[in-house]
Order: sequence, then structure tokens, then C-alpha cells
Amino acid sequence: MLPPPASPGQRLGDVDTPALVVDLDAFERNLSILRETLKGRKIRVRPHAKTHKSADISKIQIADGAVGVCCQKVSEAQALVEGGVPDILVSNEVVGAQKIARLVALAPKARIGVCVDNLRNLRDIAAASGQAGARLDLYVELEVGMARCGVPPGPAAVELVKEILRHPHLRFGGLQAYHGRAQHLRTMEERRDVISRAAEGVKRMKELLRKENIECPLVTGAGSGTFMFEVESGTWDEIQPGSYVFMDADYARNEWKAPLPRFEHSLFVLSTVMSRPSDRMAILDAGLKASSVDSGLPEIWKRPGLEYTHASDEHGWLEGSDVPPLGEKVLLVPGHCDPTVNLYDWYVCVRKGKVEALWPVSARGAHY
Amino acid sequence: MLPPPASPGQRLGDVDTPALVVDLDAFERNLSILRETLKGRKIRVRPHAKTHKSADISKIQIADGAVGVCCQKVSEAQALVEGGVPDILVSNEVVGAQKIARLVALAPKARIGVCVDNLRNLRDIAAASGQAGARLDLYVELEVGMARCGVPPGPAAVELVKEILRHPHLRFGGLQAYHGRAQHLRTMEERRDVISRAAEGVKRMKELLRKENIECPLVTGAGSGTFMFEVESGTWDEIQPGSYVFMDADYARNEWKAPLPRFEHSLFVLSTVMSRPSDRMAILDAGLKASSVDSGLPEIWKRPGLEYTHASDEHGWLEGSDVPPLGEKVLLVPGHCDPTVNLYDWYVCVRKGKVEALWPVSARGAHY
Repeated sequence: MLPPPASPGQRLGDVDTPALVVDLDAFERNLSILRETLKGRKIRVRPHAKTHKSADISKIQIADGAVGVCCQKVSEAQALVEGGVPDILVSNEVVGAQKIARLVALAPKARIGVCVDNLRNLRDIAAASGQAGARLDLYVELEVGMARCGVPPGPAAVELVKEILRHPHLRFGGLQAYHGRAQHLRTMEERRDVISRAAEGVKRMKELLRKENIECPLVTGAGSGTFMFEVESGTWDEIQPGSYVFMDADYARNEWKAPLPRFEHSLFVLSTVMSRPSDRMAILDAGLKASSVDSGLPEIWKRPGLEYTHASDEHGWLEGSDVPPLGEKVLLVPGHCDPTVNLYDWYVCVRKGKVEALWPVSARGAHY
Repeated sequence: MLPPPASPGQRLGDVDTPALVVDLDAFERNLSILRETLKGRKIRVRPHAKTHKSADISKIQIADGAVGVCCQKVSEAQALVEGGVPDILVSNEVVGAQKIARLVALAPKARIGVCVDNLRNLRDIAAASGQAGARLDLYVELEVGMARCGVPPGPAAVELVKEILRHPHLRFGGLQAYHGRAQHLRTMEERRDVISRAAEGVKRMKELLRKENIECPLVTGAGSGTFMFEVESGTWDEIQPGSYVFMDADYARNEWKAPLPRFEHSLFVLSTVMSRPSDRMAILDAGLKASSVDSGLPEIWKRPGLEYTHASDEHGWLEGSDVPPLGEKVLLVPGHCDPTVNLYDWYVCVRKGKVEALWPVSARGAHY
């Protein structure tokens, strides 16, 4: 792990670049915006740690009322448990003997959940956890429209639930129903429609379980772009927003209206002008190894008239009027927060222009 | 740093996924293809370590005849020097007191070069290295058509050279002339044209220096997509190819004809089928956090009829006929090798289907 590019007490302008910066005031406002939006609702919050990959942020979210966190990979769960996070749902399938063994080994140290969508895989998990005497929460993942993992609501999904119930050391955690593609549909109307169709599927599945006298303990899912539609449907018991803590440039391009709150940008990449080829162009030291471009280029923070127009591996092109001079530092809003965070070892946490803390990106690179 | 996903002696099929795999036979063939292509030519090779970020690979390249390596960032140079690499050119500008201090601190441990394109920055480097009693090689970066850093051939560039010569503890290393955008122009003809124009600029600059009785010790530049055009122009003394050791899917889309050799894919991402939603679709455990998508999606290695059609953060969509079953492992050829390597802590080096070595990605995440 690289040494941090900053030290507590330092001014933001003195931080070495590129650096991953969290504006703590905006970050904390995002926590409170979510809390206020859900006030009076009977809904559990299990934020997605795939966004921040941080044990520190997970524990802040739990202290703020979250029941635990989600992540996508066993190695992420390992890093978070190591960092003291007590309750983790791997909201994803875990396939292969090595991964299952690593997952099962976490169960004595924290409450661990995992999703299944395949009978053989479920039996592999049952066997490994049985042998280890480990108790896991198993969730059946429903396919609710994003065409990724999961089984459609129906008899095959019911069979999976029944199989979970056949193993006394496994607990049926409930249903995982997440529509990832819905999060970035631009209009409120599109997102509302897609989630309303997903809700119908979940209701159908709950009805099938009821007919079999199987109690469904929980329905979990939803992201930062849709969660109030899931909440208002009355069908979900738990939501899994991730990006709300940071907000990125791509999420900001969504339409945001009630019932969904507008979160603030709290995550930035600090960069330096390293070359000034012309009056209308500056080259930044932050390219696509410093800010992921899969969902578009980063945006320039609070410098109207300037645009980040192109990225190569280690360079960013800044064009426009009033181009900053050599050595000046510029804040970028990443196009996509999750893969950008994954490029860094440290969060440089800043309040009112001063470094307050350094948090490790605990699960950086934890993709296996 | 995460523990490696494999151990020596293991079969490739038993390696945990996603994993960054190097096929050592293909990797070594790429080294020898370059050596053979340059046989009988008077040209120095200084491979670009921004591609592999590995001290192990740097040392293999040097043992194979390279004079040293390039990198783009001071922190990369730090990691490589730490790993025992004796000669490094930071083929990029280094701006800001902290970065310059870190650069200068490397000079007692290795031969260190750096590029300049700005008088004030050059004086900052001169002052810092003078104070530390450090000797650095300074290269003036020429702008030769890619519109990034550098100064165009002309009086301002000559002034920079003169300023270097004014500082007795600095050595004028020569001219850096690299055309990054040329590397991925698809036809041979386009690439040849662009490099021939770049060569004219470099010749003009050498002529200007000659008129001032300044000897230009070296012209360095060129990448895997063009280097034989630079070599045949007679204008460059040193080439900096990086991607040739690995080749990626985007480079493979180039037209390859004499005088440029065709290198082989030697870098792969090993992934596992983690869900099988339908007969024509498999979901892989390798998404855009496992294989960078900035230059296109990964390709599927040696499985005709299958296509990687979409990536989300941690999932890849595999579609086609003859879709592999749950748990089966699939090799991907990354769209772009440099940012993909940067996502991993370890290379899993494989020969004839068996893990032979594990190399750390020494400069992973070293972007500052």
C-alpha cells in the first residue's frame, strides 16, 4: 500500500496529486439527507460498500442507523470484517470452492449473508458451511428486469427457498431484488415504471411463498437512483443505496425530483496542471488511471467555462477560457465513483479546506 | 496488498478469479520478436513500464538488452527503484515541490531522467537537485502532433536546452518525442504519415541545436504501434514501446504489416461463470473493476461464437452459442492492458497451464 498523499492538518492545496478527496461536510450532509428522507418509514438501510470499499465509512453508516452493509465480492467482505464491520450481505452469487471456503470462514467473525440463484451452488454452500459449523443467511436473488444474475419469480425460485430451508444450519434471509440498470435511467418516470414492474415480480414471488406457507423474512434491494420507489411500493423491507454518500457526475445527470432527494458531490479527484500547451488548454496529471471513464469523463468542480475534454492513461485535457496556470490544483468530479475509488489506497478527508483524516480504501482491488 | 490468488505449481484452472494471468511463453516470444525485429539496427530500447508497472518485468527487459525503462509518475519510479531497477526515465513532466523532492531523492539510487517543457518548472527541478547534490538527466519534451505536453520544435525549445546546460549538475539527456495518438491509428499508412511528420519536427529541432553548437545526445520516443517508423526514419536513437510485452484487444485491432511485427496476446484476465440466466447467456465474475473498458470491452480467448457484450462494476455478460456452464473458467483479453494491470496486485505467471511464478504489480496505483 502506498503512503498517503497527505497528512492531517495539511491544507487541501498542499495535498500531493492525484488524490481522492472526500469533503466531509458534504459527505455527512448526504448521510443526513438519506436519514431525513426515510424519517417515519419502516425501512431498514443496508448501504452498499461496493461504492466506498471502506471499513471506516461502513462503521459510520452503521452508527448512523444502518443495519449493516452489502458488498459484491468475498474478498471485499474479508477486508470489511478485518476492519471491524459486524454485518455484511454479499449481494451477489459466490461460485467456486475457494471463494465459498473464504466466505464460510468469515461467519464466526460477523453476520454474513450471500445470494444464490442456482441449486448446485446452493448445495455447495450448504455443504461447506455445514462442515465448518458456520451459520450463513442465504438470500434467493430474483431476476427483476436487469438481465444479470438471479432467477425469475416462479417455481424455480421457490425450489431454491425450499432447499435453503432443508439445511438447518442455513437461515433463509429473504429475497434479493435489485435492478441495477434502473438506477441510471435518466427520467423519474422511466425509473418509476421499471421499479413498479420489478415490484410486481417480487409481490408474485411473495404470494408463491405464502401459498407454500413459507414466511419471507425480508426483501432487500434498491439503489441511490430509485430507492424511494421501492420504499413507496411497500414491497421492500431493506434498501441498499451505495453512491448516495458520494454522488458522481453520471448520477448527477439523472432527473432528481420528489420523492427522491438530491444528494451532493462529496467525492473528488484533486489534480495539478502539469503542462500549459496553449492559452486555451491545460494538461492535468489525472487521466483514466486516476478517474474511471466508463460512465463519462470527470467534470470540473466550480470552474465555469472549463471542460475536461479527453483522458489518456495519466493525462487529462482541460480546455476552455480562463485556463489555470502551471502548478494550480483543480478538483474533478469523477464520472463514476465506484471504479474511481477502486484506483486509490487512501481517502483524503477534508473539512473546510483542511485535511482532517486519512481513511484506507480497505477493499481496494478486492475483486475475487 | 491482497494475498495472491494462486500459488506456484497450481493448475491454471484452479486459480481463484478474477486473476491477471501472464502466459510466459507468449510473453517471452514478444521479447524475442522485438529483439529480432531490431537485429542489426543501431537503436536503444527503453521499454515503457507504465504498461506493466513491474520491477520483475523491467529487470527481465534490461537483461534482454534494454538500457533501462520509462515510467510516467514519480511514485512509479519510486516503486521500480525500490524493486532494483537501475535506470529510469520519467517520460513526463514532474510539477510541484513534493513530486520534485521525491524525484530528486531517487537520484543517488538509480540513473534518473525526467522531461521538461516549461522554464519555471525546469528551474524548480534545477534548484531542488542542486540543493540535494543530485544529478539528473533532463530531456526537453517536443510536441510532435499529439497535442498534449511538450513544446513545439523552435526557439522556445532551444531556450529550454540552453537553460539545462546552464546548470552544471544537470545533464542534457536529449529530446523526448512521442506521439501517443499515433499508436492506435488503425492503418499502417496513417501511422506512417503521422510519424513522418513528427520526424520532420524532430529534425528541425536538431538542426536548430546544431546551429547553436549544441550536441543533442539522444532522441527518445515511439510506442508499440509505430516504433519501426521511428527506427527507419533514422531520427530516433531510442524507442519506448510498452504494450508489446502483453498486446491488448485494442492494439490487435490495428493493421500489422512489415516493418512492424505482430506481437502475441500474453496478458489475460481469468474469470469464472457465476450465473447462467439462460441458454445463450453466462454472467462472469469479471466486470469493469477487473478489465478496463476505456478502449473497448475485453475479448473472449479461443472460444469462437462467444462474445463479452456488457460490463458492470463486477459482472461481465457473455453471450453466444455454446455458453460455458456454471463454475467454468474463461480467459479474457483486456481491451487496454495498462489500466487493467493497474487494477491488480499480482501477476499470475503461467507456463503450459501451470503457475510458475507470482510477480507483484510493484507500481500498482502509483499515480502521484
